[in-house]
Amino acid sequence: MREIYLDNSATTRCFPEVAERMSQIYLEAYGNPSSMHHKGVEAEKCLREARKTLAGILKAGEKDLLFTSCGTESDNIAIIGGAEAACRRGRHLITTQIEHPAVLEAMRHLEKQGFEVTYLPVDRLGLVDPETVASAVREDTILVSVMHTNNEIGSVQPVAEIGRRIKEKNPKTLFHVDAVQGFGKAQLFPKRMKIDLLSASGHKIHAPKGIGLLYIAPGVRVLPQIYGGGQQGGLRSGTENVAGIAGMALAAEMLYRDLEGDNARLAAMRDTLRSGLTEIEDVHINGPAGAVETAGAAAPHILSVTVAGVRAEVMLHALEDRGVYVSSGSACSTNHPHPSDTLQAIGASRAALDSTIRMSLSVMNTEEEMAETVAVMRELIPMLRRYTRR
Amino acid sequence: MREIYLDNSATTRCFPEVAERMSQIYLEAYGNPSSMHHKGVEAEKCLREARKTLAGILKAGEKDLLFTSCGTESDNIAIIGGAEAACRRGRHLITTQIEHPAVLEAMRHLEKQGFEVTYLPVDRLGLVDPETVASAVREDTILVSVMHTNNEIGSVQPVAEIGRRIKEKNPKTLFHVDAVQGFGKAQLFPKRMKIDLLSASGHKIHAPKGIGLLYIAPGVRVLPQIYGGGQQGGLRSGTENVAGIAGMALAAEMLYRDLEGDNARLAAMRDTLRSGLTEIEDVHINGPAGAVETAGAAAPHILSVTVAGVRAEVMLHALEDRGVYVSSGSACSTNHPHPSDTLQAIGASRAALDSTIRMSLSVMNTEEEMAETVAVMRELIPMLRRYTRR
Repeated sequence: MREIYLDNSATTRCFPEVAERMSQIYLEAYGNPSSMHHKGVEAEKCLREARKTLAGILKAGEKDLLFTSCGTESDNIAIIGGAEAACRRGRHLITTQIEHPAVLEAMRHLEKQGFEVTYLPVDRLGLVDPETVASAVREDTILVSVMHTNNEIGSVQPVAEIGRRIKEKNPKTLFHVDAVQGFGKAQLFPKRMKIDLLSASGHKIHAPKGIGLLYIAPGVRVLPQIYGGGQQGGLRSGTENVAGIAGMALAAEMLYRDLEGDNARLAAMRDTLRSGLTEIEDVHINGPAGAVETAGAAAPHILSVTVAGVRAEVMLHALEDRGVYVSSGSACSTNHPHPSDTLQAIGASRAALDSTIRMSLSVMNTEEEMAETVAVMRELIPMLRRYTRR
Repeated sequence: MREIYLDNSATTRCFPEVAERMSQIYLEAYGNPSSMHHKGVEAEKCLREARKTLAGILKAGEKDLLFTSCGTESDNIAIIGGAEAACRRGRHLITTQIEHPAVLEAMRHLEKQGFEVTYLPVDRLGLVDPETVASAVREDTILVSVMHTNNEIGSVQPVAEIGRRIKEKNPKTLFHVDAVQGFGKAQLFPKRMKIDLLSASGHKIHAPKGIGLLYIAPGVRVLPQIYGGGQQGGLRSGTENVAGIAGMALAAEMLYRDLEGDNARLAAMRDTLRSGLTEIEDVHINGPAGAVETAGAAAPHILSVTVAGVRAEVMLHALEDRGVYVSSGSACSTNHPHPSDTLQAIGASRAALDSTIRMSLSVMNTEEEMAETVAVMRELIPMLRRYTRR
């Protein structure tokens, strides 16, 4: 059966070039970068090249990049390590109500340690107002964490403006951006955007699971969360995942080669889905992708679709039977099906919470797949509604 | 030029079968194990099979395994997470002077948090006396951490006896074993050996860098160190490194298929090196591999070699020029060349500290390579000594 994979915000298929590069490292450049002989130097060179590529994309210094094991670890080091390093200056942090659990749970951990956290609301499109952020910043605010692209509804926050407003209010407040869904889709220049800490993940950009990245602006201090042999300047001990790092750099390089072209193609595919699906009765799109007036605030690859009268799980499995893979909720919180915080924060109705699926695209998708998906849903939805109503 | 890689305790080449299996996962079974559709189920199945394989090798329950990003992270969760969970019962921990930095630095972190740590001495072979461990255990001792196989001199601690003695003295004291160098070389049955927590790493057993394992005995509580989506029962958030996990399980399966046969072959190769090298004037072997009376306490794959009058770095680079890769010190602490704690703990002289290299073997090595290495060293050492003396 043909497969249409529309769950790219959960994880992506590796680029074949990335898999090949990693295989070459597993079998040839397999040395430990800390080893002093040729095999170590060869591995260290892989790291250096990857650093150079990724630093170039972010217009950052090569020394400003920390490699971690995943986006979650990046978020944790940024928030917990950042708060621990700054705790003498204050104990107040700010975030939004629609962050990924990696941010929200790190915040909750800090609350248990005596820190105070403000959770800012978002509007019906899932956007946070920079003015609201600025007003919340206080003298004792040590860190603000706002995600770049929301993983469920694709709202893209105005991070550059938020960064500017934070620093105007309190230049010492650190600004962390969880860019796990934005990296590989948006131009991200942390220095220009006043971002001090920026998280990214390999497996959302056609690199493997098990590799993450944290940008740390020069002069910004975070405390290590894992202790040992002192790799990466003592900030993250443990032998570097050379193949994963090289794979992530290669995938990023491939995605940033023609980002505008790719994004235009992604947005066109998303729009094919949107216009096809909204022609079906009682189907609507959540977030900025559903609102014409906010085109700039919508990620090109995420579509949150409410199919009234059809439970998300039912829709998901019916689509799965036809080879179309989507997600219900974010699929990043496992086996804990609880109503989506993001959908609640944008004011979705109880019924909508139960009937919303996410479709997320990648450069591996095609327009034909979009047309086919629309056709399948056009066929399935009336059937499923009849079934549900019985 | 032919390469003789004798630095397998720093890291290993992936088994080609492992690289192939991972590639297949990168390109086909690439789903997120938390996704509810077929692609997620397929990935989840990879995890389940890996768990089953590894649990079988350790004679453990499948639920007793936690996947981490490396041996260092495993050690950190075990020690810091274990201490945090038990801190109401006491604040005393015990370890040895010859542990890996992942253990020693985790202990130092706990000391800063107000915990008390006892660092036990070892004898001239690098062995800790179970009686010494037992005497150090107190009412308020919450955790003892003793490594299985020392990474520098290959001493193998009597962990089963240590486990028994700890529990006799204080049944509530947790016993952690850093088995990063022992897993894949020794039969490790934590339940029978009274081990509560056991760390292992993928890249030391011909699986990739970026994957680690922690066995946690049923009923033992450790606190998570990374917070987020709640993967792995909430104990280690972050999307699971499916390919790395499957790769580690396959590598372990391959190594445990004929462990006795492989170990006999490794020990024979080590002995070829030992007898060949000790015939050279003023070359001697440190640790139990150098002492006939303690054969059982020596790992089959590690040889610590002191070449009097030749600095380790000089020896390493001279060997490198001939395609033979060894390490000076442990190579696990990066760019901080400080005298080896392990060699100091076994009473090595100042001169020996500067002139000791480590040779570490794997199943990928051959007897021919050993003979060639001996011949190369026999030729190099007199030359290097002349050079040094000028």
